[in-house]
Amino acid sequence: MRTESDFIGQREIPKDALWGIHSLRAKENFPDQTTFHKEWFMAIGIVKQACYQTYSSFLKAIQDKFPNEEFPFQLIESNLIEELEKVSIEINAGKHFEHFIIPAIQGGAGTSINMNVNEIISNRALQNIGKPAGSYHDIDPFEHANVFQSTNDVIPTSLKVACIRLLQELEESINTLRMEVEKTESKYRNVLRQAYTQMQAAVPSSYDKLFSTYNNALSRDWWRVSKCFERIKEVNLGGGAIGTGLSIPRFFIMEVVPNLQKLTGLPITRSENLSDATANQDSFVEVHATLKAHAVNLEKMVSDLRLLGSDLFVNREVYLPQKQVGSSIMPGKINPVIPEFVISVAHKVYANDLMISNLSGQGCLELNAYLPSIGHALLDSIKLLIAANNSLVRNLFRELEIKTNPLEESILKNPSVATALSPYIGYHQASKLAKEMKTNQISIREANIKLNLITAELLNKLIQPEELLKMGFRIGETLNR
Amino acid sequence: MRTESDFIGQREIPKDALWGIHSLRAKENFPDQTTFHKEWFMAIGIVKQACYQTYSSFLKAIQDKFPNEEFPFQLIESNLIEELEKVSIEINAGKHFEHFIIPAIQGGAGTSINMNVNEIISNRALQNIGKPAGSYHDIDPFEHANVFQSTNDVIPTSLKVACIRLLQELEESINTLRMEVEKTESKYRNVLRQAYTQMQAAVPSSYDKLFSTYNNALSRDWWRVSKCFERIKEVNLGGGAIGTGLSIPRFFIMEVVPNLQKLTGLPITRSENLSDATANQDSFVEVHATLKAHAVNLEKMVSDLRLLGSDLFVNREVYLPQKQVGSSIMPGKINPVIPEFVISVAHKVYANDLMISNLSGQGCLELNAYLPSIGHALLDSIKLLIAANNSLVRNLFRELEIKTNPLEESILKNPSVATALSPYIGYHQASKLAKEMKTNQISIREANIKLNLITAELLNKLIQPEELLKMGFRIGETLNR
Amino acid sequence: MRTESDFIGQREIPKDALWGIHSLRAKENFPDQTTFHKEWFMAIGIVKQACYQTYSSFLKAIQDKFPNEEFPFQLIESNLIEELEKVSIEINAGKHFEHFIIPAIQGGAGTSINMNVNEIISNRALQNIGKPAGSYHDIDPFEHANVFQSTNDVIPTSLKVACIRLLQELEESINTLRMEVEKTESKYRNVLRQAYTQMQAAVPSSYDKLFSTYNNALSRDWWRVSKCFERIKEVNLGGGAIGTGLSIPRFFIMEVVPNLQKLTGLPITRSENLSDATANQDSFVEVHATLKAHAVNLEKMVSDLRLLGSDLFVNREVYLPQKQVGSSIMPGKINPVIPEFVISVAHKVYANDLMISNLSGQGCLELNAYLPSIGHALLDSIKLLIAANNSLVRNLFRELEIKTNPLEESILKNPSVATALSPYIGYHQASKLAKEMKTNQISIREANIKLNLITAELLNKLIQPEELLKMGFRIGETLNR
Amino acid sequence: MRTESDFIGQREIPKDALWGIHSLRAKENFPDQTTFHKEWFMAIGIVKQACYQTYSSFLKAIQDKFPNEEFPFQLIESNLIEELEKVSIEINAGKHFEHFIIPAIQGGAGTSINMNVNEIISNRALQNIGKPAGSYHDIDPFEHANVFQSTNDVIPTSLKVACIRLLQELEESINTLRMEVEKTESKYRNVLRQAYTQMQAAVPSSYDKLFSTYNNALSRDWWRVSKCFERIKEVNLGGGAIGTGLSIPRFFIMEVVPNLQKLTGLPITRSENLSDATANQDSFVEVHATLKAHAVNLEKMVSDLRLLGSDLFVNREVYLPQKQVGSSIMPGKINPVIPEFVISVAHKVYANDLMISNLSGQGCLELNAYLPSIGHALLDSIKLLIAANNSLVRNLFRELEIKTNPLEESILKNPSVATALSPYIGYHQASKLAKEMKTNQISIREANIKLNLITAELLNKLIQPEELLKMGFRIGETLNR
Repeated sequence: MRTESDFIGQREIPKDALWGIHSLRAKENFPDQTTFHKEWFMAIGIVKQACYQTYSSFLKAIQDKFPNEEFPFQLIESNLIEELEKVSIEINAGKHFEHFIIPAIQGGAGTSINMNVNEIISNRALQNIGKPAGSYHDIDPFEHANVFQSTNDVIPTSLKVACIRLLQELEESINTLRMEVEKTESKYRNVLRQAYTQMQAAVPSSYDKLFSTYNNALSRDWWRVSKCFERIKEVNLGGGAIGTGLSIPRFFIMEVVPNLQKLTGLPITRSENLSDATANQDSFVEVHATLKAHAVNLEKMVSDLRLLGSDLFVNREVYLPQKQVGSSIMPGKINPVIPEFVISVAHKVYANDLMISNLSGQGCLELNAYLPSIGHALLDSIKLLIAANNSLVRNLFRELEIKTNPLEESILKNPSVATALSPYIGYHQASKLAKEMKTNQISIREANIKLNLITAELLNKLIQPEELLKMGFRIGETLNR
Repeated sequence: MRTESDFIGQREIPKDALWGIHSLRAKENFPDQTTFHKEWFMAIGIVKQACYQTYSSFLKAIQDKFPNEEFPFQLIESNLIEELEKVSIEINAGKHFEHFIIPAIQGGAGTSINMNVNEIISNRALQNIGKPAGSYHDIDPFEHANVFQSTNDVIPTSLKVACIRLLQELEESINTLRMEVEKTESKYRNVLRQAYTQMQAAVPSSYDKLFSTYNNALSRDWWRVSKCFERIKEVNLGGGAIGTGLSIPRFFIMEVVPNLQKLTGLPITRSENLSDATANQDSFVEVHATLKAHAVNLEKMVSDLRLLGSDLFVNREVYLPQKQVGSSIMPGKINPVIPEFVISVAHKVYANDLMISNLSGQGCLELNAYLPSIGHALLDSIKLLIAANNSLVRNLFRELEIKTNPLEESILKNPSVATALSPYIGYHQASKLAKEMKTNQISIREANIKLNLITAELLNKLIQPEELLKMGFRIGETLNR
Repeated sequence: MRTESDFIGQREIPKDALWGIHSLRAKENFPDQTTFHKEWFMAIGIVKQACYQTYSSFLKAIQDKFPNEEFPFQLIESNLIEELEKVSIEINAGKHFEHFIIPAIQGGAGTSINMNVNEIISNRALQNIGKPAGSYHDIDPFEHANVFQSTNDVIPTSLKVACIRLLQELEESINTLRMEVEKTESKYRNVLRQAYTQMQAAVPSSYDKLFSTYNNALSRDWWRVSKCFERIKEVNLGGGAIGTGLSIPRFFIMEVVPNLQKLTGLPITRSENLSDATANQDSFVEVHATLKAHAVNLEKMVSDLRLLGSDLFVNREVYLPQKQVGSSIMPGKINPVIPEFVISVAHKVYANDLMISNLSGQGCLELNAYLPSIGHALLDSIKLLIAANNSLVRNLFRELEIKTNPLEESILKNPSVATALSPYIGYHQASKLAKEMKTNQISIREANIKLNLITAELLNKLIQPEELLKMGFRIGETLNR
Repeated sequence: MRTESDFIGQREIPKDALWGIHSLRAKENFPDQTTFHKEWFMAIGIVKQACYQTYSSFLKAIQDKFPNEEFPFQLIESNLIEELEKVSIEINAGKHFEHFIIPAIQGGAGTSINMNVNEIISNRALQNIGKPAGSYHDIDPFEHANVFQSTNDVIPTSLKVACIRLLQELEESINTLRMEVEKTESKYRNVLRQAYTQMQAAVPSSYDKLFSTYNNALSRDWWRVSKCFERIKEVNLGGGAIGTGLSIPRFFIMEVVPNLQKLTGLPITRSENLSDATANQDSFVEVHATLKAHAVNLEKMVSDLRLLGSDLFVNREVYLPQKQVGSSIMPGKINPVIPEFVISVAHKVYANDLMISNLSGQGCLELNAYLPSIGHALLDSIKLLIAANNSLVRNLFRELEIKTNPLEESILKNPSVATALSPYIGYHQASKLAKEMKTNQISIREANIKLNLITAELLNKLIQPEELLKMGFRIGETLNR
């Protein structure tokens, strides 16, 4: 055990713990158990790395320019900065996460998150230079690990880095899913199916038409996510507590974001108005809303597939792959667990959306105190959507099967198909035909023979998929009956 | 009274009512009292006008091409189509809305809305040609007023028209508001104020910085709304029930959207995939989510202003215009009703957002049955946001006053200002200075005299607004102490 | 036109308008178009009536007790109070609502609502005593119409009155619906149907079992709503601006709620802590949450019925009544508009729930400024649920039909029925039987003949509804195979 | 490694893993990372213990009654059942949770949860009898661990057990918090403070009045939670897949719930309608809604305290305890992290509420597939609220301080206090007094001397706390001026 102290008093800390008293206070103040997203933790590492690199350049620049001057403030020695940088690189690689003891739901705009990381960096660096954890006169969480930084610029900036990294993964997962959907679309081109509006039989359609609606929706989602980067690429790193950069060297403010851009390889830029980027969270609202549109499309699509592939669907033709035992009591029962998983994900995204916009509207003057909850919900949604898309690719679309029933059993017996003849025989005769089909439960072929409306050849031509699905009829065609 | 009938039976209708039996059925089936948005009703007028115009061109085209042919289907005479068009123009002008008896919350994907309008058009046209309302063998709501149309293409298309029209108004209202905010920003350039993070005093800032955060947020909102048009400009008019255009002439499908574009002057185009545009509602989710980001910005901004301008704010400097008596019991009490109105609007928008995404995810196969509720909530939000913006311009920003207190009373007495000196005297001396100020409740000038840290001239320079607010310090400056 | 003035200046008001300048200011400040609920307006009438009656008793009491004293404050003459009471009775009857010009979404905790009613009462009373509207030196909206009242006690109290009245109607509508459901339950007792879990065939069930789940859910809803009255019966009338009753006679405070109770016939009582009843809105959150549970049950029930009664349900047996034409383009199409209406209602209730809890959490110190929006959403939900229940009774349950298919086609051919035999032949033999049925698509009778597992008599007994649906098997029975 | 197989194929499982192939499938199908609540896992242990105990009694009963009979189904030997029971007891104690590998967000109505526990029980029991994990012919997850159970009765029943256990903890935490609030209320009895409505100064109030509003709200919350048990005490254990108990011995159905009641010591009873308890989730909606009302009260209360205790509050009197460093950049800054934590919790509860009601409305026929997500959100909210209450007790109320300013500085200088005199000098004189105070910024004492309205003695009496706060005035008192 070692002893650490703050303005409240002293506390014992396990000897080798990289966290310190500030993390401990936070853990006790916020007895939540929700796991903080590791991706955010890692992104803080790279943001701090950019700060330390910039500090090193700053050191070099002022030594070049003012070789013999003494400055009123203490400078950190360059080898010490390198030690800090080393740890920040480890954090970006996901190391030391077991020393991050702060829960996701917390008070403060991220101070506890930032301090836990500052303590990890300081203590790990101390160990590396052969000093015991807690020797803060050598390396201090505030003065060294946090140099020229503020929670209010580091935490939102690292959230954006984590978010962009995950959005890239999401973008890819959407595209992979879209391509799987497209394969199904291609495979079942012009394969007729009965369409339904409001769960009632409508006119004929085809499987490729149905899958094309999913394909188009996912294309929009993909495009949307690709536009999200624009919304959150502007960061306030260097702005300090409220975006005015007070008491931070201008050199640092100018260089730190370009350095972060280089390190991450992401299109990050410095906001033109650092105060705005500190106070307002509307960009997160907008980005998450975009994700919600994707969740809505997923819910719609998998609901369709679950319905089409269920035991209760009339003339069932769609077969979802069977992925796990469905019941602990009914042998042989298999359930549509992948669609259900995706719908659960979608509703978690809706719930996250509520939390994000509610809390984003509650900012007060220079800052929004709820950034930790906003960020947690945002990353949660992105990760869930990636999980949903990946599961859909691997566990649903790759083995999806459609076994069509003979047309006579489904399409040609449904009175709605008579609509296709109305340009040739007029609306009233078509209605008569439909009525004949319905009353006697016969197909359009049989009904046409009975009523003798058009030739069997013309009828046969008109009920071909390409005829039924071409967009509208040409007036000249109707003369050839 | 006149008698009308449908497949269920007969009903008495008031003699001069333009609505008919189908409207009556809907009214009885859906005993809700929420008013349908007139803007949507009007947009249906112009969409139907485009249909009638296209029908007229179609008539002309086939008469030119097949002058002597007889077609299997009955064509509508051109003078009759002109009568229908005349009424559709009136509807687009907002006339006959008192005959629209369908409530906003309803079942069906809009059939009742479409049929109420079809009945109004038919009956009004009948009156115009000297026939009594209800003479449907002359002009029929289905065969004439609805010719080549489907609820499933007319209703979403008209929703988009109404939406774009209102979004243009919203765009303008945001811009007007933004300009008012900018005026305040300009007026109070470099006027210092105490900044607060998490409701605790932070370092100094200025009024223009604060208003610039609102200005930037509103600029993003404006840009967002201007991008919304892209999201919903693709319509499915001509697609019929499920987007396949079955039994609709290709001529009509090709011409009707360009005609609608010309009539409305809006950048409307035909969707490449009419089935997708019929089945999916994600674009409405996305558009409304954009509006939600705007609502979040409004809530944040007016919450700030209400707080700054309230009786409970320490060293109050902001004065909201007094717009109405605030209490029926406490004489002279004036309340911040405009911010409260705006916050109420924001929360109505959040509620609408929930409804829109929830219902958009519930589409089933070819169609989403909840379009009326989705559309109602969407138009509701846009209208509320226009109202909020307009009220903010007229009733808040134009007469907003800021009466600053002497710096000595606020900024210079707050220990946080000592941070500004740390580049010149180091962090530890600055802390000592702050402590001195806090303990003795004295200003930085007095404390500096006591501790004798820098010259009065340098101090005076450093506490000038332009010094406090410039972004960071130049290292060379700190040598001139 | 007449001229009225307030602290801002003068305005022209139409000569016969019962509203005055304060209503006009509010209308201009809050350019929303949402209709205020008439039920709330009416309830304000009866609350004010109770105030005027209490004032009359107060007058009488002090004249009795201090016949010759002169009081420092001006008393209102008793005939004038009677004039005010007369108008308040009219308001409670729904009269003069056309002079209520305040929209539902507004700023302020209800001051504008209260003032609009005060102006209506004053001006109407003035007309009744032969004076022109606007002669406020005779009858004043503040000093007379609002005597001993505050917005902060009148508006929440009247909301509770309106709410309780509507809840009684809701309670009745739930009960009526429940009885209709019970009729269906009784009618189809022991009529077997295939059960489904996760949309996959499970073991057999019956129609009465299914309807009993709706019946039970509605019974809970009914009980819930009947418990709601308890939650909101405590009012703060007499508490004044913040519940301390400052400058209101104790006589009035003690008498006004009992008078209101008598007038309304509702179990209203005075809160023990008037400040609490003024500051906190959690009871509305709780009441609305109860309504949400009802909405959830309705959504579940009608979703089931829509599915069972749809064209896409395999072996369809349920037929919803056909209530209106379903398509403007597909002749003969009928849609499940009543379930869709009810689901739309449910989602409006969910959206209202969000608004109510969000805004209820935003109270500040002595008051919650958002009571108008909270109240609007609450009444909206109750009215919508009444509409939904009524429509379900009239338009769905009364004509609901179930036409069962022969057992051989559904239950006896579904392998899940083999589960019923496992107590008699063991799990492994039952599985073999199920497999035989599935592979050859034959009924359990045929499969049993093939495999010769139990006698035809025993099998026949075991597949009787009462056997399949009795709760579990008795061990002794299995010995009689 | 060991090999396990299911209907899909074979998989390698780590030799000592207690989970098996069904858990592995689920983990791969649902790549979510949200931690499942351990409390639910533990509750499954006790529910299964009740099942095994009941099975033992069943064995004994049939051996007593039919000593020489052979039954068509295989019975489990009693020593084996005891082995299963032993493990179920360990699970209820929280052991083996590291072998539970299923995430919180998943497809299926809980089959994966149930199977993971069944696998743990089987494999752990196998180890205990000296067999390797995976020897399922000795102890089988389906036939032994799951005997007479179904996911559809075990999972909702265990959710209710976990929920009731946590609700008891919540109830206690609310009561502890309430008592702390009451202490503050008692401590500051009749200590005057300026009241505010809509953030504007209203009439005087006192600290005990303010804290009494919190006390009352928490009392309601406590009462609410104590009523929750009623809502969810009815379980469907014994009902099997759809509540009909098919192929489960009646003995088991009758005995298992009483056994569970005894084991848990909780007031659990068997539902009268097991199908209803299986299909409907409205009780969870109702229970969570109750929790939401509590969250709303917490948000309101801590928002008040944060405001009153902030740097921006005029004439600050309230001091929140300082719990941790507030800024990584501004030395000495302390933030209201406990209120912020509580508000974050409240908004997570609102988000959970949305998810619960949304998904509860999506049940389909015999079952709701989303029980895992519903249950997760429900337990999440209860745990968060317990955390919030506990943190409020320990970290806020125990050290809350109120240091009142002299009355002259706050109450007596605020013109609103003049209202207190109106019963003695009339409304118009009181207004004059208020105006005098406002114009000259003087106290009511000074203004009264200037205007000479009442004696200094009477004034002094009227501004005593007990006078200002007594409920209303007695008419006789006003004669003694």
